[in-house]
Amino acid sequence: MKIIGIDPGYERLGIAIIEKGTGEETLVYSECFQTDAALPYHERLYKVGARIEELILEYSPEQLALENVFFNTNQKTAMDVAAVRGVLLYIGKSLKLETFEYTPPQIKSAIGGSGRADKKAIASMIHNLIDIEQKIRLDDEYDAIAVALTHSAIHKK
Amino acid sequence: MKIIGIDPGYERLGIAIIEKGTGEETLVYSECFQTDAALPYHERLYKVGARIEELILEYSPEQLALENVFFNTNQKTAMDVAAVRGVLLYIGKSLKLETFEYTPPQIKSAIGGSGRADKKAIASMIHNLIDIEQKIRLDDEYDAIAVALTHSAIHKK
Repeated sequence: MKIIGIDPGYERLGIAIIEKGTGEETLVYSECFQTDAALPYHERLYKVGARIEELILEYSPEQLALENVFFNTNQKTAMDVAAVRGVLLYIGKSLKLETFEYTPPQIKSAIGGSGRADKKAIASMIHNLIDIEQKIRLDDEYDAIAVALTHSAIHKK
Repeated sequence: MKIIGIDPGYERLGIAIIEKGTGEETLVYSECFQTDAALPYHERLYKVGARIEELILEYSPEQLALENVFFNTNQKTAMDVAAVRGVLLYIGKSLKLETFEYTPPQIKSAIGGSGRADKKAIASMIHNLIDIEQKIRLDDEYDAIAVALTHSAIHKK
């Protein structure tokens, strides 16, 4: 079974597709999708959604897991990211995926980190949890892998 | 040319489709779409989007105008409504509509009301601005008509 994990954003969107078999999970695909800051917000929102739709059609994951960040110091940014969250959930449901959300504390706890684990420690824990052959370039990709792994750990069939 | 105006929400969604010809605008269709509070939030978000998709395919508006409310006393509600905003903008763009947003002060000013105009005064001003044959039942419908009229007034071709 495949899970698509997403760290929502309209500037950078972390995306990871993991496969859950009988043994350890494997990373099928990951990317950090970026949109051009010169584009209007509506256009960036659309591009993000279109990319996710494309990847779901290509990889056919059955479940979608999002990192849900409710608070941001900048209210406008928080609302703009919340709109991305809506787009992702809608696309997931439209394409018949089951949809789930996890908060940052749930993710930290599932990945095995204490509240004090920094980005580097988390990346290293992720490498212990999952087979990763490709090179991961950005934190957003690690965040997406982390939410997919969290879902896999919490939502056992 | 047809405009779909929407007052976003996941509990109640005000929807209005107006037609803009050479003379006064006419109201083609309006409704207040409600979702069942017993359903999970993801499901309600999906139903709202699916209804808008259905109406766009039925009436073929070329432009979509949303009331954009950035602030809410309840942060959680604000984020949940922001997600609906994302869904609506994404569907609009996907179906090749031009998308626009207007703030409550822009709408009040376009409809002709002072900042002190109450719901009843606004409803009466809307009736002066547009031919409405059907019965309007809910404030959400009036809000949707108001944002469509605002767009029509501001965005002259």
